Amino acid sequence: MFVIVTYDVEVKRINKIRKKLKEYLVWTQNSVFEGEITKGKLDRCLNELTKIMKENIDSLYIYKVENPKHIKKDIYGQEKSFDDMFL
Amino acid sequence: MFVIVTYDVEVKRINKIRKKLKEYLVWTQNSVFEGEITKGKLDRCLNELTKIMKENIDSLYIYKVENPKHIKKDIYGQEKSFDDMFL
Repeated sequence: MFVIVTYDVEVKRINKIRKKLKEYLVWTQNSVFEGEITKGKLDRCLNELTKIMKENIDSLYIYKVENPKHIKKDIYGQEKSFDDMFL
Repeated sequence: MFVIVTYDVEVKRINKIRKKLKEYLVWTQNSVFEGEITKGKLDRCLNELTKIMKENIDSLYIYKVENPKHIKKDIYGQEKSFDDMFL
Protein backbone atom coordinates (compact mmCIF):
# COMPACT_ATOMS: atom_id res chain seq x y z
CA MET A 1 0.00 0.00 0.00
CA PHE A 2 1.00 3.65 -0.49
CA VAL A 3 0.89 5.98 2.48
CA ILE A 4 1.34 9.67 3.15
CA VAL A 5 2.17 10.63 6.72
CA THR A 6 1.77 14.24 7.85
CA TYR A 7 2.54 15.41 11.36
CA ASP A 8 2.35 18.49 13.52
CA VAL A 9 4.25 17.82 16.76
CA GLU A 10 5.94 19.87 19.44
CA VAL A 11 9.40 21.07 18.42
CA LYS A 12 11.21 18.96 21.03
CA ARG A 13 9.82 15.75 19.49
CA ILE A 14 10.21 16.57 15.78
CA ASN A 15 13.66 15.01 15.36
CA LYS A 16 12.65 11.78 17.08
CA ILE A 17 9.46 11.48 15.01
CA ARG A 18 11.35 12.29 11.82
CA LYS A 19 14.13 9.80 12.62
CA LYS A 20 11.60 7.04 13.25
CA LEU A 21 9.61 7.75 10.07
CA LYS A 22 12.82 7.78 8.04
CA GLU A 23 13.33 4.11 8.97
CA TYR A 24 10.13 3.21 7.13
CA LEU A 25 9.27 5.93 4.59
CA VAL A 26 10.72 8.71 2.45
CA TRP A 27 10.89 12.27 3.70
CA THR A 28 9.32 14.39 0.97
CA GLN A 29 8.62 17.77 2.48
CA ASN A 30 8.53 19.56 5.81
CA SER A 31 6.41 17.30 8.10
CA VAL A 32 5.50 14.96 5.24
CA PHE A 33 6.67 11.40 4.55
CA GLU A 34 5.43 9.08 1.84
CA GLY A 35 6.08 5.67 0.35
CA GLU A 36 5.03 2.11 -0.20
CA ILE A 37 4.88 -0.06 2.89
CA THR A 38 3.35 -3.34 4.04
CA LYS A 39 0.59 -3.36 6.64
CA GLY A 40 2.87 -5.17 9.06
CA LYS A 41 5.62 -2.58 8.80
CA LEU A 42 3.15 0.29 9.02
CA ASP A 43 1.67 -1.18 12.21
CA ARG A 44 5.17 -1.51 13.68
CA CYS A 45 6.04 2.06 12.65
CA LEU A 46 2.84 3.44 14.22
CA ASN A 47 3.39 1.43 17.36
CA GLU A 48 6.83 3.04 17.75
CA LEU A 49 5.59 6.52 16.79
CA THR A 50 2.78 6.49 19.33
CA LYS A 51 5.40 5.78 22.02
CA ILE A 52 7.27 8.93 21.02
CA MET A 53 4.42 11.35 20.48
CA LYS A 54 2.23 12.98 23.15
CA GLU A 55 -1.26 12.10 21.94
CA ASN A 56 -2.86 14.96 23.87
CA ILE A 57 -0.69 17.54 22.08
CA ASP A 58 0.74 16.12 18.87
CA SER A 59 -1.06 15.33 15.64
CA LEU A 60 -0.22 12.64 13.11
CA TYR A 61 -2.29 11.68 10.06
CA ILE A 62 -1.87 8.57 7.94
CA TYR A 63 -3.43 8.63 4.48
CA LYS A 64 -3.57 5.08 3.09
CA VAL A 65 -4.14 3.97 -0.50
CA GLU A 66 -4.24 0.20 -0.92
CA ASN A 67 -3.27 0.22 -4.60
CA PRO A 68 -0.43 2.68 -5.35
CA LYS A 69 -1.86 3.03 -8.88
CA HIS A 70 -4.84 4.85 -7.38
CA ILE A 71 -2.80 7.89 -6.32
CA LYS A 72 -0.95 10.41 -8.43
CA LYS A 73 1.46 13.10 -7.24
CA ASP A 74 2.07 16.41 -9.03
CA ILE A 75 4.90 18.69 -7.99
CA TYR A 76 4.82 22.48 -8.35
CA GLY A 77 8.00 24.37 -7.72
CA GLN A 78 10.84 22.56 -6.01
CA GLU A 79 11.01 18.85 -5.22
CA LYS A 80 12.58 18.92 -1.78
CA SER A 81 15.18 16.40 -0.70
CA PHE A 82 15.95 15.37 2.88
CA ASP A 83 19.26 17.21 2.73
CA ASP A 84 17.45 20.47 1.98
CA MET A 85 16.42 20.48 5.58
CA PHE A 86 19.97 20.74 6.82
CA LEU A 87 21.37 23.34 4.39
CA MET B 1 -11.61 13.41 -6.80
CA PHE B 2 -9.91 13.59 -3.38
CA VAL B 3 -6.73 15.60 -3.05
CA ILE B 4 -4.12 16.25 -0.39
CA VAL B 5 -2.04 19.40 -0.83
CA THR B 6 1.20 19.81 1.11
CA TYR B 7 3.40 22.85 0.82
CA ASP B 8 6.71 24.19 2.02
CA VAL B 9 6.95 27.86 1.09
CA GLU B 10 8.87 30.91 2.28
CA VAL B 11 7.35 32.46 5.40
CA LYS B 12 6.32 35.68 3.67
CA ARG B 13 4.09 33.73 1.27
CA ILE B 14 2.51 31.25 3.71
CA ASN B 15 -0.57 33.35 4.52
CA LYS B 16 -1.35 34.06 0.88
CA ILE B 17 -0.96 30.38 -0.08
CA ARG B 18 -3.06 29.30 2.90
CA LYS B 19 -5.78 31.87 2.16
CA LYS B 20 -6.00 30.72 -1.46
CA LEU B 21 -6.13 27.01 -0.56
CA LYS B 22 -8.84 27.71 2.01
CA GLU B 23 -11.12 28.87 -0.82
CA TYR B 24 -11.03 25.39 -2.33
CA LEU B 25 -10.03 22.83 0.33
CA VAL B 26 -10.01 22.13 4.07
CA TRP B 27 -7.04 23.01 6.23
CA THR B 28 -6.19 19.87 8.16
CA GLN B 29 -2.76 20.35 9.62
CA ASN B 30 0.22 22.68 9.42
CA SER B 31 0.99 23.01 5.67
CA VAL B 32 -1.60 20.39 4.72
CA PHE B 33 -5.00 20.81 3.02
CA GLU B 34 -7.33 18.09 1.86
CA GLY B 35 -10.76 17.56 0.36
CA GLU B 36 -12.91 16.60 -2.56
CA ILE B 37 -12.70 18.85 -5.59
CA THR B 38 -13.54 18.78 -9.29
CA LYS B 39 -10.77 18.81 -11.89
CA GLY B 40 -11.91 22.22 -13.11
CA LYS B 41 -11.74 23.77 -9.65
CA LEU B 42 -8.38 22.14 -8.93
CA ASP B 43 -6.96 23.54 -12.16
CA ARG B 44 -8.24 27.01 -11.25
CA CYS B 45 -6.82 26.69 -7.72
CA LEU B 46 -3.40 25.63 -9.06
CA ASN B 47 -3.42 28.38 -11.63
CA GLU B 48 -3.90 30.94 -8.84
CA LEU B 49 -1.39 29.26 -6.50
CA THR B 50 1.37 29.22 -9.10
CA LYS B 51 0.92 32.99 -9.45
CA ILE B 52 1.56 33.41 -5.71
CA MET B 53 4.43 30.97 -5.18
CA LYS B 54 8.04 31.37 -6.29
CA GLU B 55 8.63 28.17 -8.23
CA ASN B 56 12.41 28.39 -7.82
CA ILE B 57 12.09 28.44 -4.00
CA ASP B 58 8.71 27.11 -2.89
CA SER B 59 7.46 23.54 -2.99
CA LEU B 60 3.87 22.38 -3.42
CA TYR B 61 2.72 18.77 -3.84
CA ILE B 62 -0.72 17.62 -4.98
CA TYR B 63 -1.66 14.02 -4.22
CA LYS B 64 -4.70 13.06 -6.27
CA VAL B 65 -7.02 10.07 -5.81
CA GLU B 66 -9.74 9.86 -8.44
CA ASN B 67 -12.14 7.82 -6.31
CA PRO B 68 -12.34 9.08 -2.70
CA LYS B 69 -13.19 5.51 -1.65
CA HIS B 70 -9.61 4.51 -2.50
CA ILE B 71 -8.08 6.56 0.30
CA LYS B 72 -8.43 6.17 4.04
CA LYS B 73 -7.24 8.55 6.74
CA ASP B 74 -6.25 7.52 10.27
CA ILE B 75 -5.63 10.12 12.96
CA TYR B 76 -3.20 9.65 15.84
CA GLY B 77 -3.24 12.21 18.60
CA GLN B 78 -5.06 15.47 17.99
CA GLU B 79 -7.26 16.30 15.02
CA LYS B 80 -6.26 19.89 14.37
CA SER B 81 -8.76 22.55 13.40
CA PHE B 82 -8.02 25.75 11.45
CA ASP B 83 -8.52 27.82 14.60
CA ASP B 84 -5.78 25.88 16.39
CA MET B 85 -3.35 27.83 14.27
CA PHE B 86 -4.34 31.14 15.77
CA LEU B 87 -4.54 30.20 19.48
